[in-house]
Amino acid sequence: MKSLSIGLIGVGTVGRGVVNVLERNKNEISRRTGCNINLVSASARDVNKAQAFLGENVKVYSNPLDVVKDPKVEIVIELIGGTTDAKSILVESMRVGKPVITANKALLAEHGNELIDLASQHNGILGYEAAVAGGIPIVKALREGLTANSIQWVAGIVNGTTNFILTQMRDRQAGFAEALEEAQRLGFAEADPTFDIEGIDAAQKLSIIAALAFGISVQPNRVFTEGITKLEPIDVNAAEDFGYRIKLLGMARRVSSGIELRVHPTLVPEKSSIAAVRGAMNAVLVQGDAVGPTLYYGAGAGSEPTASAVIADLVDISRLINSSPDQRVPYFAFEKGQMSDEPVLDIDDVVTSYYLRIRASDRPGVLADISRILADNTVSIEAMRQREPMGKDELVNIIILTHVTRERNIRAALGRIEKLDSITGKVVMLRMEHLDFVNE
Amino acid sequence: MKSLSIGLIGVGTVGRGVVNVLERNKNEISRRTGCNINLVSASARDVNKAQAFLGENVKVYSNPLDVVKDPKVEIVIELIGGTTDAKSILVESMRVGKPVITANKALLAEHGNELIDLASQHNGILGYEAAVAGGIPIVKALREGLTANSIQWVAGIVNGTTNFILTQMRDRQAGFAEALEEAQRLGFAEADPTFDIEGIDAAQKLSIIAALAFGISVQPNRVFTEGITKLEPIDVNAAEDFGYRIKLLGMARRVSSGIELRVHPTLVPEKSSIAAVRGAMNAVLVQGDAVGPTLYYGAGAGSEPTASAVIADLVDISRLINSSPDQRVPYFAFEKGQMSDEPVLDIDDVVTSYYLRIRASDRPGVLADISRILADNTVSIEAMRQREPMGKDELVNIIILTHVTRERNIRAALGRIEKLDSITGKVVMLRMEHLDFVNE
Repeated sequence: MKSLSIGLIGVGTVGRGVVNVLERNKNEISRRTGCNINLVSASARDVNKAQAFLGENVKVYSNPLDVVKDPKVEIVIELIGGTTDAKSILVESMRVGKPVITANKALLAEHGNELIDLASQHNGILGYEAAVAGGIPIVKALREGLTANSIQWVAGIVNGTTNFILTQMRDRQAGFAEALEEAQRLGFAEADPTFDIEGIDAAQKLSIIAALAFGISVQPNRVFTEGITKLEPIDVNAAEDFGYRIKLLGMARRVSSGIELRVHPTLVPEKSSIAAVRGAMNAVLVQGDAVGPTLYYGAGAGSEPTASAVIADLVDISRLINSSPDQRVPYFAFEKGQMSDEPVLDIDDVVTSYYLRIRASDRPGVLADISRILADNTVSIEAMRQREPMGKDELVNIIILTHVTRERNIRAALGRIEKLDSITGKVVMLRMEHLDFVNE
Repeated sequence: MKSLSIGLIGVGTVGRGVVNVLERNKNEISRRTGCNINLVSASARDVNKAQAFLGENVKVYSNPLDVVKDPKVEIVIELIGGTTDAKSILVESMRVGKPVITANKALLAEHGNELIDLASQHNGILGYEAAVAGGIPIVKALREGLTANSIQWVAGIVNGTTNFILTQMRDRQAGFAEALEEAQRLGFAEADPTFDIEGIDAAQKLSIIAALAFGISVQPNRVFTEGITKLEPIDVNAAEDFGYRIKLLGMARRVSSGIELRVHPTLVPEKSSIAAVRGAMNAVLVQGDAVGPTLYYGAGAGSEPTASAVIADLVDISRLINSSPDQRVPYFAFEKGQMSDEPVLDIDDVVTSYYLRIRASDRPGVLADISRILADNTVSIEAMRQREPMGKDELVNIIILTHVTRERNIRAALGRIEKLDSITGKVVMLRMEHLDFVNE
């Protein structure tokens, strides 16, 4: 199998996420790219600490530019943040013809126009999926997925810190200061949170989104920006009385006279998808003239979610380098010869939880019989409720939610339950999925 | 500018959508691809009708294979449905080395494994974004956006007809038959709805999703499939009592012993994003080990949403053909030299609606004064509420939601309101966005 050598600049939270995910999903990723991706060098402020984390096989420099110059390095990943050194790294990578990946929204917002001019001159490759909305592949959606559309507007929750604070203010009826403190305590806000709470981070991301959506230059300074620091609980509550939630929304909208770019606390209808985005999650809503509304939701920050986007760029580039252009992306996502024959399970072997509706005579002992049969088959009951008969027959509906179990156990139990004298007809059985994470 | 000639097989609902969107967004699409896309030939069962719709410049055949053979055609789009003729079209396109795009999920589910083998042999290009979840770019997300991840599971509402019926059953307390009738009346269900309501369409899509997520072959016959025809209102209501909604969910999950593939009515927590997907909309939830949960939402069917996905494939292919591989996708989505200088508007020129909180003395005439000033500035009131003072001062909070207006009008009005004797301090002003579509 081919191999590809990468250099990592910055071994902080996201850098470590990249290393961990590349290692853990090595096999899965090489099935998708047809090549092994190897970290050969890195740079970090604390060389010893980075060396201890990365192990002997990775050369660790203190100067980021040494990574770019390292002849073994084929692709550069910049994860140091800031805009001065980071810019030098991108410029130098392009100059020496090495593809470069960054998660640096500030860099792209401030110098994006200049950097893409330079990239064009050098025929360079620049990946920045991680710079907007972390793990959500929104750059790809806008650059490639929605290309048929004239984009009408984009509305996004693109800053997790402020969304976390707003969620706290609402859930706990907390003031801004108190909610900020809680966010800091839990690691969702920095010690100096200005950049997030004043909307600057969101405005930078919005300026990149607008460039992608409308084909305008990146103009962070033209984004009208208002943070959430002045929000008071009375306004959160009053908005709620009218059926709205308050979110820090980034809006980019095309109107006849030009483009609106603005980040500010915004009332959105409580039933809209955007209103349901809780905690530190992000979501971007894109309105295209052909497709209508589409929404992209996920983690907008954090070690591994951001690493997910960085590595997606890495996979894109390694596919470019290693494949004929026509075959860049494997037809079914994995390389030919890398399809697996993992078995698809019979339904009897599926493990999930269940809703049961049992029609029974309303007489003593029925519930005991049912409970015993379920227990005999190792099915445990999460909740049970009896519904009064709706018609004139004397039957009641017993509704049971079960804990997780194997389908064959449920089927065996139902076979026996349906044979009870007190039971009429077949038991209605529906499956349940908790999809827990959505509500965090 | 370069140009690219395409042939369209099938001029039905989706085919017309493709023609309309390509025409309407001609300029936008060529800014993204650096080339003009021209429809040169087509085939349709009713040649005259198609000719009338497509105009004189398009050659219309009755035999689909004549489109593939047409020497002018560089890319073939197959939109006839069915699996026999459609398969011949794909096979023939690959044989003659023409990229081919299809929206045909049945074809891919039944013959996908064979077709990608053939595509590999011929080094062919096969686009099928439109085959799964219509306008949502989920194929791209799975093949490219989430490649860093070991996918743990995918749960999707991928059939709009059944989701529409389930939404009706819940909203109107309707039985299945009645809800189906309503769906048919409104054009959301076919005269023969079997394919949708029995879950077969969803199972086909799920089998493609599973191949993309796990790198297994496409196995529609291994999907455990149960439709929604037996659902009764009592179960919809009982589920709701426990805090759940019933959705026709497609689940593909990797567990230690293999892969679960199943489509069936499923109870999902009412607060989950999936539960909020109403009407004919689709949503796909993907759980990756690095990124965590991500969700993709949009229209899963219909003329222009499906055309959006077909044209996204077309743009991908034209970028491949017309660019150096490294520059396949423009850095900021639009081609160099195609960036526009549309003005970013000043906030004064933004048009939206507003939330105002005004602290006023509780005395007669205050509301009249405020209303008059708003009216003078052409701001109309949507709702108004007065909140009792919370502290001991004698001030009340007057909360006003306005209809849409220009920001300069609001600012002018607030300037005058703040000068009224009865008003204390600055007016709190927040902006509102209705994002209407989300609730349909």
